[in-house]
Amino acid sequence: MNNRLTLPELDILFEIKSLHKQGALGRLLTVIGEEGGIVGEIKTEFVGKTHSLRKITVSVYDEENLKSLVKAIEEKTEAQILSYKDLVYERHKGGKIHSGRKHDVKSIWDLRYIYTPGVARISREIKSNPEKAREYTSISNSVGIFTNGTRVLGLGDIGVLAGMPVMEGKAVIYDQFVGISAVPVLVDTKDPLEFVNIIEKISKTFGGIHLEDIRIPDCFFIEEELIRRLDKPVMHDDQHGTATVVLAAVISALKQTGRLKDKKIRVAQVGLGAAGFGIAKLLMDYGLDVTGSDINEASKKQLEKYGGRTASLQDAVGDSDIVIATTGVVGLIKPEMIRQGQIILALSNPVPEISPEEALQAGAAFASDGKSINNALAYPGLFKAALETNARQITPAMKIAAAEVISSLADENELVPSPFHPEVHKKVIEAVKKACA
Amino acid sequence: MNNRLTLPELDILFEIKSLHKQGALGRLLTVIGEEGGIVGEIKTEFVGKTHSLRKITVSVYDEENLKSLVKAIEEKTEAQILSYKDLVYERHKGGKIHSGRKHDVKSIWDLRYIYTPGVARISREIKSNPEKAREYTSISNSVGIFTNGTRVLGLGDIGVLAGMPVMEGKAVIYDQFVGISAVPVLVDTKDPLEFVNIIEKISKTFGGIHLEDIRIPDCFFIEEELIRRLDKPVMHDDQHGTATVVLAAVISALKQTGRLKDKKIRVAQVGLGAAGFGIAKLLMDYGLDVTGSDINEASKKQLEKYGGRTASLQDAVGDSDIVIATTGVVGLIKPEMIRQGQIILALSNPVPEISPEEALQAGAAFASDGKSINNALAYPGLFKAALETNARQITPAMKIAAAEVISSLADENELVPSPFHPEVHKKVIEAVKKACA
Repeated sequence: MNNRLTLPELDILFEIKSLHKQGALGRLLTVIGEEGGIVGEIKTEFVGKTHSLRKITVSVYDEENLKSLVKAIEEKTEAQILSYKDLVYERHKGGKIHSGRKHDVKSIWDLRYIYTPGVARISREIKSNPEKAREYTSISNSVGIFTNGTRVLGLGDIGVLAGMPVMEGKAVIYDQFVGISAVPVLVDTKDPLEFVNIIEKISKTFGGIHLEDIRIPDCFFIEEELIRRLDKPVMHDDQHGTATVVLAAVISALKQTGRLKDKKIRVAQVGLGAAGFGIAKLLMDYGLDVTGSDINEASKKQLEKYGGRTASLQDAVGDSDIVIATTGVVGLIKPEMIRQGQIILALSNPVPEISPEEALQAGAAFASDGKSINNALAYPGLFKAALETNARQITPAMKIAAAEVISSLADENELVPSPFHPEVHKKVIEAVKKACA
Repeated sequence: MNNRLTLPELDILFEIKSLHKQGALGRLLTVIGEEGGIVGEIKTEFVGKTHSLRKITVSVYDEENLKSLVKAIEEKTEAQILSYKDLVYERHKGGKIHSGRKHDVKSIWDLRYIYTPGVARISREIKSNPEKAREYTSISNSVGIFTNGTRVLGLGDIGVLAGMPVMEGKAVIYDQFVGISAVPVLVDTKDPLEFVNIIEKISKTFGGIHLEDIRIPDCFFIEEELIRRLDKPVMHDDQHGTATVVLAAVISALKQTGRLKDKKIRVAQVGLGAAGFGIAKLLMDYGLDVTGSDINEASKKQLEKYGGRTASLQDAVGDSDIVIATTGVVGLIKPEMIRQGQIILALSNPVPEISPEEALQAGAAFASDGKSINNALAYPGLFKAALETNARQITPAMKIAAAEVISSLADENELVPSPFHPEVHKKVIEAVKKACA
């Protein structure tokens, strides 16, 4: 029944009542499988004499697949579906973040310490010595996550409000991995200069400025201008977070193919959007010989402005040791374009420019898609280190330090570790702090 | 030794090692008292054969008083001070608020629900139905607290950065009392129009807009303009939070003097700053006959613009049943200005325009200072109710509903209950929600 090439990704939590007898559960799970559903967690809530109650997580492809699965369970089994919920929607109910107190306020005395009259002394202290704001406010451990909603994920210009769940997700990751207090700010303007002006005027609220999901070329101007105007770290994550993790992957691939010491490595960066541009620049900073390629002439000009070389897709790929693709174009790289011994990182999600299998068959020494490339490996530690050292910028040296340590924690069969690696964020912070000094 | 009229308010936590023998602790506490210190909490950390270790909170007047107290303990007792800390500074270390996750993210699966790829479905949902942002983001339970730092507490124009501890205090109170996610935003401009424009452009981030510590007359324009432009609740707390609690106090005073049903009550509002102006307007909305007075002609014009009457201090006070003073001028109201049977609320902190004792002696039927007037009674519940009902504005009816219920919870001997009254915020929310409907 299921001839699809990808795995189902829509996770549904079913609450199911089934007969407590031989074969009942087996029959149920078999029907789920026949309909293309993959069974995940099974939690038995209750077992009675005749019935059992279970919560079963099932991954399906889409709404239609879900409907046919529900129908099949009802028609082909004796089980009864009591309820089912889309787990992604469940996790978003009421939003994913909260800004609140660090300590309880239980009495008038507490209130007099954290609010008037006590707070006036702290305000006066900061007035006469602004540096004290680092010590006595939350600013020095905070990042504002700013978007104008013009390029949210792969969804394009969906507006700031629809971008909020993504910003909240970023904030959750900051908090979970490095304890940064992160606050999304939706700036509802498509005018890059107005966007910059607004952020400048409210920038004292935050220790760092995280830019997110802003279209090209505006994102380049916005980041550059804010770095110029502000004396605190500013980073467009789509460029530099991605670039840091990709550099880590490149280092791992070079290690695994025994070429890490080779200083004449040539890289083709195929696709010069925000991520591709950031990758090209950071790889150049790392000392690699990068040629960029893009169908958009303005994007090529942008890289040339930064001293990068550009070429056609054919020439760039044909003339390189490493090919990195971030175009979003499925199947862009044909097997016949691949040279013997090349490293191929075709990173577009969910479907890459060429599958690792095809690339290896065509002669690549190493090939990977982008599934393991997760910005959450880089940006939390980069900002945490920058905040702790009161760094004024996030420099290439800091990103390279992060990439090297991320790569060093990857297992032999992976390019980068999981963002849940127990050491990774701590090690990134340590390494980046050294690079700040 | 201590001839001061006020109580010491600087709370110091001493860690003290003293001899474990008869009279040692008594001697220590006696010396503290002789130096003007008031002993608060005593926590015994350790009792050994010869020594005990205690944490003792002592309220002193100021740094100088602290120094002399330390010296006296060292010279006049056998106790040894191991350390001492200013509790207000302690409570501010690292800031008072944090913005973070509502639920832990423990696995790649969690991450796929709260971030990519799962989050894309929520973003698409909101893109096609913006109302869904209420359900699937934190926006509908959030308030942005905006200041430009031009009138922070009684400290004046100390700038946005020095205002941050106050904004954090407000945010703590929101979270503690009604569970609102509140986020301070420091807007570094003194241009009222620019301030309005910036808030408008980032207003989609928040469910409500709380304005704080903005100088007059700018605060009036800013609030009015934002209410006009935005379709969500906007409130300048210095005006309306204060006014709501003062109206509650007025209702309580009328009750306690048996005049609640008297519809011809005349009120003198002395001082037409942000608070005074807000009080005058709300009391007029409540149906009282208000005359405003201020040395600033522009402030009087402002009230007249809203249909209020104004007069000289002498005339306003002489011709009223209730006198409310919010001028910050110690001793402004002389005993000879008071008429028999008047209600006097001299609210300036820390020292009122006339002390309750003096006012009563001069013939007032009722007198109080402003110590119990705490905005934390009103603004959390007002905003919570507005957010829960998706109200577009915070109306006079909502403020009056809040004031009435606040007054109803006051004990016989108080004007308003403590903000820690176990029921007050719940009751305010209920009452205000009814007034929204």
